[in-house]
Amino acid sequence: MTAKIRVAIAGASGVTGSSITNALLEDSDKFEVTALARPSSVNKPEYTKHAKRGAIITPVELKASSDLLVQAVVGMDVVISCMTLQQLDQEMALIEAVHTAGVGRYVPSWFGPCCPPRGVMLLRDMKEDILDHIKRLYLPYTAIDVGWWYQLSLPPLPSGKLDIKVEYSTTKIIGDGNTPWAVTDNRDIGKYVARIIADPRTLNKTVFLHGEVHTQNELWEILEKTSGESIPREYVSKEDLLKIITEAQAEISKGDMGRPAMASLGMAQYKYMLGIRGDNTLKHARYLGYLNAKELYPDVIVTPFQKYVEDVFHGRVKAAYS
Amino acid sequence: MTAKIRVAIAGASGVTGSSITNALLEDSDKFEVTALARPSSVNKPEYTKHAKRGAIITPVELKASSDLLVQAVVGMDVVISCMTLQQLDQEMALIEAVHTAGVGRYVPSWFGPCCPPRGVMLLRDMKEDILDHIKRLYLPYTAIDVGWWYQLSLPPLPSGKLDIKVEYSTTKIIGDGNTPWAVTDNRDIGKYVARIIADPRTLNKTVFLHGEVHTQNELWEILEKTSGESIPREYVSKEDLLKIITEAQAEISKGDMGRPAMASLGMAQYKYMLGIRGDNTLKHARYLGYLNAKELYPDVIVTPFQKYVEDVFHGRVKAAYS
Repeated sequence: MTAKIRVAIAGASGVTGSSITNALLEDSDKFEVTALARPSSVNKPEYTKHAKRGAIITPVELKASSDLLVQAVVGMDVVISCMTLQQLDQEMALIEAVHTAGVGRYVPSWFGPCCPPRGVMLLRDMKEDILDHIKRLYLPYTAIDVGWWYQLSLPPLPSGKLDIKVEYSTTKIIGDGNTPWAVTDNRDIGKYVARIIADPRTLNKTVFLHGEVHTQNELWEILEKTSGESIPREYVSKEDLLKIITEAQAEISKGDMGRPAMASLGMAQYKYMLGIRGDNTLKHARYLGYLNAKELYPDVIVTPFQKYVEDVFHGRVKAAYS
Repeated sequence: MTAKIRVAIAGASGVTGSSITNALLEDSDKFEVTALARPSSVNKPEYTKHAKRGAIITPVELKASSDLLVQAVVGMDVVISCMTLQQLDQEMALIEAVHTAGVGRYVPSWFGPCCPPRGVMLLRDMKEDILDHIKRLYLPYTAIDVGWWYQLSLPPLPSGKLDIKVEYSTTKIIGDGNTPWAVTDNRDIGKYVARIIADPRTLNKTVFLHGEVHTQNELWEILEKTSGESIPREYVSKEDLLKIITEAQAEISKGDMGRPAMASLGMAQYKYMLGIRGDNTLKHARYLGYLNAKELYPDVIVTPFQKYVEDVFHGRVKAAYS
């Protein structure tokens, strides 16, 4: 019997964190799972659920130069961050602690679409800052990107049957809707991550995982067939997006780093990158040096987009973030 | 008979550019070599020498949105930049032209020690800016680093026999002199580059080439044995270097981007990286994702440092930059 792989997760209560925590807990012969939770968040229902399924919940503040934080990660084989970029200071503190503790592998909070390192999306630039910090420390790492999410890909239905929260979704067709990009079911992320973090081939590499590759026009057609409804096409053009980006950048350059300006910039840059530049494809991931999870783990079965749409339409899963 | 590989080099008159141009011209069955030269520099002796050995000299200004520049690189399989970072604007213009022309592979002006991407050396940060620009265009590339140079590694001899130009050299022992780093004979760079640019395995990768790995104490001992002279050790400490770095950064942050402040910062950061942080090693190159030229081309024979020292001491080569 080999020893279990000891994994600690920061941000286990979030969408990506839950997907990963669930997948690791399902393989309890292989993994011992610890959720690092702020003391004030320990009683969140997500942590209670993870604990019932066998996760250790460790209350700890993620702050710099904290012995308690180092103690919380000492002896871990893998530490995974699923925090948001609003928690960048906490992630940097976690990285320092992981370095001090001599953890075997750190997985930073990437988990987004494939995109060149700098100058395309501010959010990606911040992720590169995290990776640069990791590299200056020669900390063993694996950075994982996951494409765009099934859960953010559907427009609302005219009948009102799907209650999609529009703010963070690609609910309008970008450009002509014919640019393909990689999409992934949130629920499948954990399955791949469980394989990636136990694999010596992925050490000090970036890995790209995804479910399927589609254009928006294809996604709309799948939803129309499944629902039997005709969905009016709403479009957002390159020029619309550039205008939003320029205005938000102007606000931010004046020192407004508040949520509205940052969210506005972030979503417009996501859309521009996905639908106009077309970065989020397998071809580009290969160019950018990512390993392809489908090639590494051909036996992993992902949820087809068609199946996800049926699940949502028939109420078997919630339309995410709704 | 396969067609020759068509290579254009910007900066072919410099030290690295000459090493590469010489190696490619030596293999004239395999390579057709073009030197891109500013019209005002076309009569430099280096270009005349290259032309005599079979290089095509193409006078062209490296400036943005220039049809002439695009024409100069159309049909090239490989374009190599050996420009300095003072010529960053010209390199960016060359990259745009190479992209427009659809060149098969671009080799940016890296050719330095191995070091993490950002926050260690300003010079390296600028090289990352170049690579980021390349990646945003999905331009096929190979970025090559070469370690520290034999030619910048020797202290002056008490007898005055070696006339070493001190400004850009590691002529003082950094820290305790026991940190190993990779060193390379300038003259060997071209041999490896000739192999790397013809190799599909190195496309869209970074490659690290080097001659040997030594500590400064070892280098001093080799020079002492060869010369029969006893060399007094002069030391520069971590604190000395941090002071220079902090002062130069303060000058630069006040807007002084002039040569003295930049050179002062650049050299102090090189020394700190080499002798204090110890970044420039094979182990770190592997971590940072570089392919190792010694593993790719085990048949390439490099000049031993001992041989270089003998060549310099007996006047068979000039102590470089002297």
